[in-house]
This record gives sequence, C-alpha cells and structure tokens, in this order.
Amino acid sequence: MYKKIKSVLIGNALKSTDSESEKFSVLWGLPILSSDAISSVSYACEEILIVLIPVLGLASYKPLMGIAAAIVALLLILVFSYRQTIDSYPNGGGSYSVASDNLGHTAGLVAASSLSIGYVLTVAVSTCAGAAAITSAFPSLLPYKAPIAFVLIAFLTLGNLRGIRDSSILFGVPTYIFMAVMAVMIVTGIVKYLVLGYVPEPAVALEMRQSTRDISMFLILKAFSSGCTALTGVEAVSNGVPNFEKPTQKNAKHVLALVAVTVFIIFSGVCLLASLYQAVPKEDITVIAQIAAKIFGYDSVMFYVVQVATAVILVMAANTSFADFPQLLSLLAQDGYAARRFASRGARLSYSNGIILLFGLASILVFLFHGETHALMPLYAVGVFLAFTLSQTGMFRKWLKSREGRWMHKAFINGFGALVTAVTCVIIGVNKFAEGAWLVLICIPLLTLFMTLVKRHYNRVSADLSIPKSGSLLILKEQPEKHILLPIESVNKSFVKAFNYALTLGGSIEVYHVSTDPAVTEKLKKQFAALGTDAQLVIEEAPYRNVNETLLNHVDQRMNELKKHEMLTVVLPQFVIRRRWHYLLHNQTSLLLRSSLIKRRNVAIISIPYIIPD
Amino acid sequence: MYKKIKSVLIGNALKSTDSESEKFSVLWGLPILSSDAISSVSYACEEILIVLIPVLGLASYKPLMGIAAAIVALLLILVFSYRQTIDSYPNGGGSYSVASDNLGHTAGLVAASSLSIGYVLTVAVSTCAGAAAITSAFPSLLPYKAPIAFVLIAFLTLGNLRGIRDSSILFGVPTYIFMAVMAVMIVTGIVKYLVLGYVPEPAVALEMRQSTRDISMFLILKAFSSGCTALTGVEAVSNGVPNFEKPTQKNAKHVLALVAVTVFIIFSGVCLLASLYQAVPKEDITVIAQIAAKIFGYDSVMFYVVQVATAVILVMAANTSFADFPQLLSLLAQDGYAARRFASRGARLSYSNGIILLFGLASILVFLFHGETHALMPLYAVGVFLAFTLSQTGMFRKWLKSREGRWMHKAFINGFGALVTAVTCVIIGVNKFAEGAWLVLICIPLLTLFMTLVKRHYNRVSADLSIPKSGSLLILKEQPEKHILLPIESVNKSFVKAFNYALTLGGSIEVYHVSTDPAVTEKLKKQFAALGTDAQLVIEEAPYRNVNETLLNHVDQRMNELKKHEMLTVVLPQFVIRRRWHYLLHNQTSLLLRSSLIKRRNVAIISIPYIIPD
Repeated sequence: MYKKIKSVLIGNALKSTDSESEKFSVLWGLPILSSDAISSVSYACEEILIVLIPVLGLASYKPLMGIAAAIVALLLILVFSYRQTIDSYPNGGGSYSVASDNLGHTAGLVAASSLSIGYVLTVAVSTCAGAAAITSAFPSLLPYKAPIAFVLIAFLTLGNLRGIRDSSILFGVPTYIFMAVMAVMIVTGIVKYLVLGYVPEPAVALEMRQSTRDISMFLILKAFSSGCTALTGVEAVSNGVPNFEKPTQKNAKHVLALVAVTVFIIFSGVCLLASLYQAVPKEDITVIAQIAAKIFGYDSVMFYVVQVATAVILVMAANTSFADFPQLLSLLAQDGYAARRFASRGARLSYSNGIILLFGLASILVFLFHGETHALMPLYAVGVFLAFTLSQTGMFRKWLKSREGRWMHKAFINGFGALVTAVTCVIIGVNKFAEGAWLVLICIPLLTLFMTLVKRHYNRVSADLSIPKSGSLLILKEQPEKHILLPIESVNKSFVKAFNYALTLGGSIEVYHVSTDPAVTEKLKKQFAALGTDAQLVIEEAPYRNVNETLLNHVDQRMNELKKHEMLTVVLPQFVIRRRWHYLLHNQTSLLLRSSLIKRRNVAIISIPYIIPD
Repeated sequence: MYKKIKSVLIGNALKSTDSESEKFSVLWGLPILSSDAISSVSYACEEILIVLIPVLGLASYKPLMGIAAAIVALLLILVFSYRQTIDSYPNGGGSYSVASDNLGHTAGLVAASSLSIGYVLTVAVSTCAGAAAITSAFPSLLPYKAPIAFVLIAFLTLGNLRGIRDSSILFGVPTYIFMAVMAVMIVTGIVKYLVLGYVPEPAVALEMRQSTRDISMFLILKAFSSGCTALTGVEAVSNGVPNFEKPTQKNAKHVLALVAVTVFIIFSGVCLLASLYQAVPKEDITVIAQIAAKIFGYDSVMFYVVQVATAVILVMAANTSFADFPQLLSLLAQDGYAARRFASRGARLSYSNGIILLFGLASILVFLFHGETHALMPLYAVGVFLAFTLSQTGMFRKWLKSREGRWMHKAFINGFGALVTAVTCVIIGVNKFAEGAWLVLICIPLLTLFMTLVKRHYNRVSADLSIPKSGSLLILKEQPEKHILLPIESVNKSFVKAFNYALTLGGSIEVYHVSTDPAVTEKLKKQFAALGTDAQLVIEEAPYRNVNETLLNHVDQRMNELKKHEMLTVVLPQFVIRRRWHYLLHNQTSLLLRSSLIKRRNVAIISIPYIIPD
C-alpha cells in the first residue's frame, strides 16, 4: 500500500547504473539552475528603487541605471571567476569545496553554512511570495497563506523526489515562459518608447526633490546592496556541475554563460523600462506590473500573462535550492560534516534525504512566520556574498600556490572577483545589519560549530571501530563458557519456544522469575516442574513490584561474575502484535527491558518472536 | 533524576505488604466517598428551581419541597438497597460486579460503561466549575479557564497517585469544611427566620403566575429529573468497599449511612432555605450564594466563606471519581475486559495506570470544550441511574435465586429500589434526551462493545498460549541444526564482536553483505579475507539500493529451506547511542531491520550491543 502510493507519487525505483540518464542537458539545466537568479532579477530593480525614490523622487532613475551597470559589471566578474572554478572542480565546485580545499576546513564550513541558510531561506521566501500572489488574486484565501506556501513546497519536494530528469522538465517550462514574456515586454517597451514616441505621465506624487549633486555615497551604496539580490543564484551552476551530462564541464560553462546573458538582458531591460516609464514602487502593485500596465495597458491579456509568469517564477526560484542544497549536503555528508544518510541516493537517484530535510526546514519557517517571510529576504544576501568571497579567495590562493600555466592571469580574475565580492559583502552586511543580517551572522558560526561537532563524533566512532592491522587476532579461537538467562512470567507456549531455543545454545540456563504475588509464583513453580527439565528456576521477590528494575539488577550482578570477553546471553520471548490497537492491551515489558539491556556492553539479547493471534 | 522528581511528587515506593495501611478509615473515607454526592447537592436545588421558576414564579417553592421530599425518599431506598449490596459483595460491590454476577456479562459491562463515562465527565465538569469560580474572582484569568481546570486535574492526579492515605487526608479536609459551613448556614438561616422573624423581600420580577392547581405532571417530572443529580455519587461507597480498613463491610455501611445523613441534611436544608428566603436562579449568582447573602449579608466574611467552600467542594467532587474509577477499571482488567496494566498497583499501591487514564481523558474533554463543560452536566445522570437500576435488579435476581434466610424481605427492598431507579432513569432519559443524553446512550453501547472485543482478544491469546496437559512433551529433546546469518556492512570492531559471539553458537555461519557500491564491496572482501576465518561471505547486489528489503528477501528464502521446528538465527550488531543528538547521525538500520525480522515466526534475533563513544 505504502509502496504503491510512493510509486504513483515519485515513480518506480531507478537502478544505480541508470544515474547517467538522471543528469541535466544544457536545455533543461539552464532553467533549473537559473531560476533563482532570474527570479531575483524580477525584484532587484524594485529593491533599488525602494531605497532611492523616497529620497530622490524623480531624480532616482539616473542613479538607477548607474547602479544597474555596476551590478552587471559585478555579474561579469563573477561569471569569469566561476568559469575558472568549473574548470578546476569537476565534482561540484561549490564554494564549500573550493574554500575547504584552499583555505582550510573552517572556511569551507563557513561557506557551506552560508549557502545552506541561503537555500532554506530561498525556499521559504519564494513559496510565500507565490502564496501571496495567489491570495491577492483570491482574497478569500488570505487566512490560508501559510498552508498554501506549504502546499507549494510539498509540490516542489515531490517533483524533486522524482529525480532530476522529471523535475527539470516539470519546473523548467515555467522558467522558459517567464524568459519569453520578459523578452516580449522589453522589446515592446523599447519600441513603444523610441519608435512610437510614448511619453509616460509623470507620477503625480513625485518631484525632483534633490539635485543629483546632493546624492550621498551612503544612499548609493545602500541601493547597490539592495540590488545585489539580483546576483544571488549565480553560484548555482558551479555548485551543480556533477549533475550535468557529459561533457560535464563544457556543458556547465555553457549554462553559466547563458544564465549570465539572461540575467543581464532581463535585469538591465527591466531597469531601463523602469526609467523610461517612470515606475514607482508601491504597496499594492509591483514595478514589473506597473511597467506591463503602461506598455500593454491595464486589463490587457499580456498584463495578466506578465503577472502570472512573475508569480510562477518566484516559486520556481525555490527549485534551484532543491537542486543544489541536497547536492551540497551530500558533499558535507561524504566528508563527515553531516549525517551519513544525506550522502545516499533515494529510490529515484535524487538525494532524497536532503530534499526532505529542505522540505521540513522551509515548512517550519513558513508556519513560524505565518507565511509572511518577506522580512527574511534581506537576510540571505550577506550569506550568499560571504560564500562568493570565500570561493573567489580560495581560487585566488589556488593559483598562487600552483603557479602553473597562465596562473597570473587566472589569479587576477579570481583575486579581483574576491575583492569586489568582499567589498559588496561588507556593504550589504553594514547596510542590512539592523534589518536582520545580524541573525544570519549568528547562525553561520553556530551551524559551522555544529558541523565540526558532527565531524568530531564521526572521527571518534570510526577510530573506535577500526581494527588494528593484525585484525585476525581479534577472532577468539577458544569457546568461552556460555551463560544464559531466561526471564519467565508464566509457563506458556511463548516461554516454551524461547526455552527450546535456549536449550539449543548448549550452555547453563537460568530461568529467572521476579515474584510480586506469592500465589502466582506458587502456580508457576508447579507448572515449571511439570515441564520436566533440569534447568534451574531462580525466584526473586520484588516487594515494590518493580519487576524490570529487579531483573536488571540481577543481570548486573551476573555480569560482574563474568570473565573478560565472556558475554551474558539474555533470551527474551517477545509478543509480536499485528493489529495496532492490540498494542494497548499488551504491556511490552520485553521491549522496555530490551532497550535497557542493550546499553550493557557484555550482554547478548536474543529475541524469540511469538505471533499473537488477531 | 526522573526517580528523584517522582519521589518528591508522589513519595517513595510502598511495599506490597503495606497495602493494609493504604485503606480508608471511617473518618477519612467519608469525605472522599461522599464529596461527589455532597457537591451535587450544592447545585441540585438550583437545578430544580431553574425548571420551576420560569413557569410558576413565586409558586415554585411549594412543589420544590415536594420534589425534595421525593428525592430524599429515593435516597433512603438507595441506601437500604446498597447496604444489602455491601453485605453481599465485600470485594467491591459496584454495579459492575453485581450486574455481571446476576444478570450476565453484558449487563455488567453496560453498568461499567455507564459508570466510567460518569466518572470521566464528573472530573471534567467539576474541575471546570472550579476554574469558573476562580475566573469569576479574577476576571483577568478568563482566557485561561481550560489551563486552570487542567492544573486542578493534575493536582488531583498527583494527590491520588500518592496513594489513599495521603490523598484522603489532603482532599478530605475541604469536604469537612464545606459540611461545617453548610451546617452553620442552615442553622443560622432557620433561627433567623423562625426566631428573629425575618421576612424576605419578595424578588421584584416574580409574581404568582399560575395557581398551583395548574402545575402539570410533566413539569414536576422534569424538575424531579433535574434534582436527581443530587443522588449521583451515592453508589461510590459500595463500589469502594475493598478500600476500607477492617472490618471492611461494617465500616463501609457506617460511611454509607453517614453519607446519606449528610446528603439529607444539606439537600433538604438548602431547599428549605431557598423556599424561606425565596432564592431565584440567576446567571451571575448561585442560589446558595443568594441564601448566604440574605442570611449573613453581602460582604460579610461568612458570605465569602460559603463561596470559597462551594467552589472547593465542586472540585473535590472529582476526587470521588479518582477513588472509584481506577478501582472499577482494575476489576474490569482482572476480568479481561480492560488492558491488563490497569489491574496492577503503582509505586504507592494506588492503581496508578487508571488514575493516569482518568487524568488524560478528563484533560482532553476540558481542552476540547475550552473549559466550558457545564453543558455536559445533564449527560451523566442517565448513565448513573442506568447503573443504579442494573445493580438493584441484579440484587433482586440474586435473592430470587438464592431463596435463603430473609430473602423475601431483601428482595422487596432491592426490587423496589430497582423499580424506582428504573422509572427515574426513564424520566431523566426522556427529559434530558435532547439536551445531550442521547450522546451517552450512544457511548455506552460502544464502550460495552469495545470491552467485549478486548475480552475476546485476551481469550484468544490465552487459548493460543496455553500448554496442553502433557506440556513436557513440547520440550525438544534432540538438537536441531543451527543456521546463523550475520549481516555485514563493513569489517569493524562491532562486526568482530558479533562474529565472535556467533562463533560460540557453534552452527554454520553465513556472513551476508548487500552490495550497493562495487568499490565498497571489493574493499570489504579483502578486509574479510584478512580476518582469516573459514566462514562463508555471501554477497548480493542491490541495484535499487534497497538494502533492508534485499536482506529480508534473503531471510525469507533461507527460512523456506528450514525443516519444521528449525529456527534461523540472525545476529545483528547494534550501535548503542548515549547522547540523544547522536541519533541524528546514525541510521539505525539495525533497529528497522529488527522490527521487520521479528514479525517472522521462525527467526531468532540476537542483538550484540556496541557502545558508541561520546
């Protein structure tokens, strides 16, 4: 039943050898790995204007284009830097790998923490944005914002559990649609303005408040740091290299270039249109919607198409996290910094445990914030740029160390990238500190510490478990004496089954009864005698009716008498219950006993099942 | 740590042989077993007036006294009937025992269901009434009505877990205080009216609406059925007989007589005062409070004393349920109609499992109804009178069958009791049907059915487990061949420990590995060979990475090859985790595997613990 539901929802299991077919082509890798970047483009222009307009009014549009140019330049630097990373790290050149390889484990873990937090926040924020779009279309759904976001997360989770091939097509189509819609809007907008000579009505509320000369550096930096959200998601491609079809690195670099071109066109296009059509951020209508309204007219079909496509791309942004977070987690798990289970692939060859963890964490955030996660948005740009910086610095160190080939050229590119992203990171951190970036700056070291502790635990366990080279010596050649303890409550078939098994072990059997009621004990003695065995029946009184405690004390006593390497074997008859409600009717003392016994080093516990009739 | 908290809260464990000291004396048995009855008296008069006043106005007080007289007569009948029950059933002559003894199991179970429902409802209703008294004194606590009721229930639960001796003194004192306060009020009230010639101001809103001649039979019956709540709790004494000190039955009969006298004095006293002082039920002030105000004056100390004492006695009513419900449940458990655990006494010799169940059920009701359980009050009178009727009818049948001694006299008393309670039960059922009695009439048969199913399950299990008279034949004399399966993930100390143990068993060992990664398997083969053992290493591929499933299939295959009575022994190395968060880091596949294996009849599972370092 469970299996059937699973196979309907996520499909039948795939063989390990099928893993090559579960990879991205360039065609379907582009939308998955770019959706985060592209969707952040859709609100980056608005974020810049939110900072500028209240101070500069209509004078905002000139600095807007300047800031957009700076961000595009930063994008170019990142693209060239990451091309080099892809070349050097074919097995997933995420910031984690690059930083830990070249800057040490701690730097790697800091990068991994920053990115992980970013991925989880992206899922929460973008699905809540999608839920907000739905509730503004159907206001009666407003109280169900968090459940709607949860459903969106669940939908993405299921799609990703189906594996890369299915999910990349399922979730790639909306991204392509959004790209097409944006292209149409940008071209139409430019044509309408230049060719048809459209003159936008100036927004009534705005004047030239300040001359451009008064623009403070502080304001520009603040606007720039807000606009940098456009670049979150650019690192996705280099993190996801191993997910590409062969030739892996070539395909990845193609996709990176295409992502950059797409981001460039859409971001600069939207910023240009915002200037030309004098869009102003408002509570109830987004900048993109205003532009669409002015270009296509309110109530035109294209206006609604733009709205729907924007809402869908916001949700799709989460999908990049679903592609990269489990991948990162599997690397961490392989290195021992995360629980082992995250390193293994599920039935559909996706890293299902990582996907489910992402589902769980994002859902918790969504419900914790009642679907209002917009406040979390400024938080993760710091983390993302911290990861950028560490990755670039790592690459820079790598070239300095290797000094092979055109290392100076390469070191210059990555060094420049590191410098610029570091500066950006500081700008964002300072500007957004009070808005919540401090929270991320607390979480990153905590998460880093946690992963270090996980690694320490795994190291200790592995050291403890490992066998010295002369391993064969550990096998005991002589047979130690066997000590068997068989607790009895009453003489019945379950006991007889366990007793018969104990007899086959061929040691000395002690049948042990804890007495709480003299009448019951008398009856037991008679029944046991009737079995006609020469095993010893030991009876101990428990005046306080604490049966398990008495038995465990007895076990401990017996164990003290053992020689080194000798084990005490406890045979436990266990009732096996087939109907759930029958659990209410049986005490399960044997299970409780087992969980206490197993904590004792020199005990072997033998469970003999007795199937209870329905 | 857990033990320390437990001993502070409920005291140190008591020996089974101490049980004689954990019994009621007459002095402390009276308040515990009468608190339900006495507290219902405190509102029974009000319940009658609520029915009469809207129709009859000031003409209500004459029929009030008539109805009170009828209820007192019913009380007398019940007392005489129950004296006979106590004589005949020294081991707890509750309706359950009497009915199942004389009318068959089903009748007994119906009585038990009715009483159980009544007990649970009593706890929920009376603690909510207590919470309501607290919130009307401190209105800022109003939103926390349910949590306050929950705290009251928890307090009663803890007190009762401490055992009879502690709880009867702890909860007996408030009952005695209430009795004293009522006595003072009744005496003062009568003196003030008769001796000092006090004339109450007639309530303004009331007139003589109808002449007394027009009083319909229907109205009287309705008022009577409301007033019968005064009698709920009278059965408590005969249910709790085994809780009394020796001479058990004599003490129980003394207490029954005292309960009856107390109920008689307080109930008739309050009804008389209500008539003399013309109390009228109102939303914001109870009848008893009105009487107290008119006798002692508003803002007098005694007015507040009456208020507080009434609030406390309402909560104490729940305590009768805490004394009787676990007792009834233990009888049911001993007979196999409830889970066995309810038959055993806890650390303090109380039936702790029953107490905790009552705590849980009442708490659920309180939170489900947000602390507004007043609506549940009319429900349980039907159940209580159904139990009365079954018990009386049972006693009647008993005398008819035995025909010994003064059987005709005894049969007459119980027969009359049965007739009157049956009629009362029908009157209440009809009058309260729409108010919710139908719910109880659905729950009673459902609970009865459930208990029958429990009994059937226990019967089947016991038949299945029982050994034929020639029990000794079941012990196998010859040693069957031993088949040992030892799953391996990697060669480490935990495996070697398990392997060494398996070697001591002396059968053929199959070391079995499920391969999901060729590289890992190759390494394993080499390490295993290095151990220098002649045990067979079997490797099976799992192309779909479903390790446990593959292993279970292999087990099933191996089991098919077994002869009858042969067992397959599976040795499972098990990691024992000492810190909770480490659970996140280890897969516990061995536990999952164990829970699947144990469902197979011919498998013996040997768990070999390996303690993981911190």
